[in-house]
Amino acid sequence: MKDVHAMVPRHPRLGLHRVGIEGVRKPLLVERSGRVITLTTAFSLAVDLPSDRKGSDLSRNAELLADQIDWPEARPVPSLESVCASIARELLVRHPYATRSEVRGTAEYFLSRGIAPGRESLENFTLLAEGRAHREGSNITVRRLIGAEAVGMTACPCAMETARDRLVQEFPALGAAELKELPIVTHNQRNRTSLTFEVTDDVEVEADRIIDAIEAAQSSPTYAILKRGDEARLVLDAHRHPKFVEDVLRDLLASVPQRFPMLSGDSVVRVRTVSEESIHKYDVVADHETTVGELRSSNAST
Amino acid sequence: MKDVHAMVPRHPRLGLHRVGIEGVRKPLLVERSGRVITLTTAFSLAVDLPSDRKGSDLSRNAELLADQIDWPEARPVPSLESVCASIARELLVRHPYATRSEVRGTAEYFLSRGIAPGRESLENFTLLAEGRAHREGSNITVRRLIGAEAVGMTACPCAMETARDRLVQEFPALGAAELKELPIVTHNQRNRTSLTFEVTDDVEVEADRIIDAIEAAQSSPTYAILKRGDEARLVLDAHRHPKFVEDVLRDLLASVPQRFPMLSGDSVVRVRTVSEESIHKYDVVADHETTVGELRSSNAST
Amino acid sequence: MKDVHAMVPRHPRLGLHRVGIEGVRKPLLVERSGRVITLTTAFSLAVDLPSDRKGSDLSRNAELLADQIDWPEARPVPSLESVCASIARELLVRHPYATRSEVRGTAEYFLSRGIAPGRESLENFTLLAEGRAHREGSNITVRRLIGAEAVGMTACPCAMETARDRLVQEFPALGAAELKELPIVTHNQRNRTSLTFEVTDDVEVEADRIIDAIEAAQSSPTYAILKRGDEARLVLDAHRHPKFVEDVLRDLLASVPQRFPMLSGDSVVRVRTVSEESIHKYDVVADHETTVGELRSSNAST
Amino acid sequence: MKDVHAMVPRHPRLGLHRVGIEGVRKPLLVERSGRVITLTTAFSLAVDLPSDRKGSDLSRNAELLADQIDWPEARPVPSLESVCASIARELLVRHPYATRSEVRGTAEYFLSRGIAPGRESLENFTLLAEGRAHREGSNITVRRLIGAEAVGMTACPCAMETARDRLVQEFPALGAAELKELPIVTHNQRNRTSLTFEVTDDVEVEADRIIDAIEAAQSSPTYAILKRGDEARLVLDAHRHPKFVEDVLRDLLASVPQRFPMLSGDSVVRVRTVSEESIHKYDVVADHETTVGELRSSNAST
Repeated sequence: MKDVHAMVPRHPRLGLHRVGIEGVRKPLLVERSGRVITLTTAFSLAVDLPSDRKGSDLSRNAELLADQIDWPEARPVPSLESVCASIARELLVRHPYATRSEVRGTAEYFLSRGIAPGRESLENFTLLAEGRAHREGSNITVRRLIGAEAVGMTACPCAMETARDRLVQEFPALGAAELKELPIVTHNQRNRTSLTFEVTDDVEVEADRIIDAIEAAQSSPTYAILKRGDEARLVLDAHRHPKFVEDVLRDLLASVPQRFPMLSGDSVVRVRTVSEESIHKYDVVADHETTVGELRSSNAST
Repeated sequence: MKDVHAMVPRHPRLGLHRVGIEGVRKPLLVERSGRVITLTTAFSLAVDLPSDRKGSDLSRNAELLADQIDWPEARPVPSLESVCASIARELLVRHPYATRSEVRGTAEYFLSRGIAPGRESLENFTLLAEGRAHREGSNITVRRLIGAEAVGMTACPCAMETARDRLVQEFPALGAAELKELPIVTHNQRNRTSLTFEVTDDVEVEADRIIDAIEAAQSSPTYAILKRGDEARLVLDAHRHPKFVEDVLRDLLASVPQRFPMLSGDSVVRVRTVSEESIHKYDVVADHETTVGELRSSNAST
Repeated sequence: MKDVHAMVPRHPRLGLHRVGIEGVRKPLLVERSGRVITLTTAFSLAVDLPSDRKGSDLSRNAELLADQIDWPEARPVPSLESVCASIARELLVRHPYATRSEVRGTAEYFLSRGIAPGRESLENFTLLAEGRAHREGSNITVRRLIGAEAVGMTACPCAMETARDRLVQEFPALGAAELKELPIVTHNQRNRTSLTFEVTDDVEVEADRIIDAIEAAQSSPTYAILKRGDEARLVLDAHRHPKFVEDVLRDLLASVPQRFPMLSGDSVVRVRTVSEESIHKYDVVADHETTVGELRSSNAST
Repeated sequence: MKDVHAMVPRHPRLGLHRVGIEGVRKPLLVERSGRVITLTTAFSLAVDLPSDRKGSDLSRNAELLADQIDWPEARPVPSLESVCASIARELLVRHPYATRSEVRGTAEYFLSRGIAPGRESLENFTLLAEGRAHREGSNITVRRLIGAEAVGMTACPCAMETARDRLVQEFPALGAAELKELPIVTHNQRNRTSLTFEVTDDVEVEADRIIDAIEAAQSSPTYAILKRGDEARLVLDAHRHPKFVEDVLRDLLASVPQRFPMLSGDSVVRVRTVSEESIHKYDVVADHETTVGELRSSNAST
């Protein structure tokens, strides 16, 4: 049978950065703290293609996914990022003509959360992971990306202050003193924030720890179950921590050195936050990229 | 050339309700109050199929769209719903074997809005339209659906009252009297509400009037441009009109008789509202279907 | 604490069809043939609201989901549709003012599939389920909806015949006889088809059986792993079963009586199929609704 | 009124890469070859934020969009990319504390296309544009990104050859010679391909020319209107130009030097192609980034 992929391309003799498959859905068994959970995961897998080869053998990508994920059901993987890294490495074995590979996985993830005892439910978050392998001679190095996204709430500090100014004028009897103490109305909204680390070593970072860090940086986490008293508590708490997207990012970045001491200084940190503004039809967004080392220096100098 | 579509289907001899095309994108020229605007529109077109025919001649649907929309650029249509109705009727002419047809169109639509003079900008809304034709003998009747969706804001009346209770306890000096007057913090969020009318006669209903009705039923409209003082004004206004999704629906339905006197009593009214809750990761939704006649009786009896 | 939801609405005194929550994500444990699997599921839950009540107690919906899904991890449910039915019934208990409830669940689902031994992998499908409860006096009846969607392939029979005509003219040496036997080029594409049953009794219908029926009605199923020889086999097989969307629907409907003998005649059958046409930028769609009883009569009369 | 945005952030004193707004929808009037068209456009606008400033004045972004797009209706802009560049420059004027800005715009775009005379209709494409401004001292430089995406069709060359091998065995009477000439069945599918140029100078590149280049690199363009004979013609043509995603990318890259002589050598070229495989439930993807200069050298050396 003619191997069309292995033929020399007609023209031009160009190597291509990435050829692969996207949107492959799989149930992934992960063992965490002695418990096995199933993550419904979307994977993408790609390798580079040298200039003298017409096509990439993409059926190997699907076979590799099946080999590592579908069948060894008795052997759950330790984490989404570890399986991405393992597949990235193995891609370079099965595509001997390639020198770089990239594997991405995203999955919905559930944690028990509750604003008070008896209010617990499973809340949904998103796991973000990548493995990128690079071949130099007979040596293969792998970088991993470990991250998560959490939905919470932001309350705007600016509208709060201008509303306070108006209320001081409107309710002179109340007195500015009391109105300074009072949580004042402002717009609040859903906020989606992600934090990812790109690491070169074997460090383990728990997704739960990443999600905790994000929720602590928002004005408030959100919950599925809120009885009447709980709603007031959450709303008051969020209004006592009003935050711009800029504040969410900075508070999250500032917390990284203390919350993630296991990370080496050259680990790359990426943060992105989106507030789905209640007062506008569009979103407000902020993002930043830095290293753990820079954050440590920055904190030390504060 | 063999006409495969006209062949008799192997088995079973079943008529089918709807066969057609979906997601056809077109620029539609509409003339409104002497001004021509362009709506980037998504269309779907379908007819029924009798039991003795293998396939529907779908190329006629695409040709019909081109004939009515692409080429008569010098002749803009009066409205999205009128072109849906006209295409629905013509579908039954071009598919002589069909007895029912259905054409849907949705388009983004822009209106100038501003919270104050000098703050105007074009805000985006969605137009919803349908035409449904039915052939009885040589007679074709057409029903039209005319509607729109608007994004605005809701502020929750329940969390506001429970927060007020907590603040009364926390700030005894303030006095419950003052706190009764004060707009109190609550959760607020994006709200998407749609209102559509299904009519059997030739009545004209302006999309602008539908959008006005929706915005009036939400806690507040939202705006692209809000300077600092404007934000406070919008936020205070929304908190002075706190609404559940149930309130949005009922207030909108209650306004129909007065705002739409041109509609006949048998016109079907459909409303749906979605609040993208800031305190939850999920949405809160309400919908209802009734007739203009029932709403008139209901209002009269209040 | 003031119960704002229980207040009488200002105006109008209108009952509303549906008030509820949408897009609640949960991991659902399902026991099938002695094996427990996890379905990442999206739920929506709603009840009606009487005219004398301002709001629906939505926190009860989230609590109910947690009670039935989050915590009894040791007791997996028998199926997605059974848990939808059970939640629909319980909604009417927890909302004593409501007379109707509706619960929808959709989940990604995986089955092992392979075009040949050694090519097996987990392929993704979608489960569709609903439970709808109705209270009459002290009696609650529940209807269930059981269904699935499968992605496969269609090859167009019409373009195949016209291409054959052209090839006969272009290759006179070949002879029309040979060209009649040969699978001829045509456009082929992804096809998404769903089949659902709405039932009033306690009948069990396996999702796997529904998926089998859909795949048998498409030109071919699709697979994640296809080595070179497999690709040719799948492509030739699909071209030997060329199908319009109309053919997919009819063949699927025709297979229902034999494949689902357990269904009572009044069970409602809904089918929908979408071919993401390779030769157009838009989709071709067909849908139909009938009963199992009508399909049995129709088959009997063929 | 207190300017909360201008306050010094509590901690940490970190500058942020990008703070802005996303998903702002606008109708944009563009004048092309003496004709004014309306593009329904989605914009995002962002600037960086220095370490000593708490927040970015986001209302200026919305005001700037309104100033440049909503009101000067009598003055249509020359192109989507020119308005992105102009807004990017002006963002640095209105945010004097910022040194970098980024404006993205995407819009649906329509061109008349037909497989034959009398079959013309408006086909939809996507325009992609960016403007990125950078301030150094009193000098502002702007880079522009100009691009488009087109949906067409790919037919797989590999499955075609393996199918041919099988047909040779199955139809020995036909003879391998004839079967070598004949277009043979394979899988074909929707393909989305984008081509963008990032340029530093004032060069103009017509979107139509970019779309022409993409369509020429796919196995075939696709059309809304195809009568029976046209379908066969398109299908046969696509099967005479079978292409992997790798072939689409390379053929597109190879055509750049001749089709875009106006581009300077340091212009960055990015290509991405996605085939929504008819035989799989997942997509096949390839992307590459290079410069016009490298493509010219590569072509010269072939």
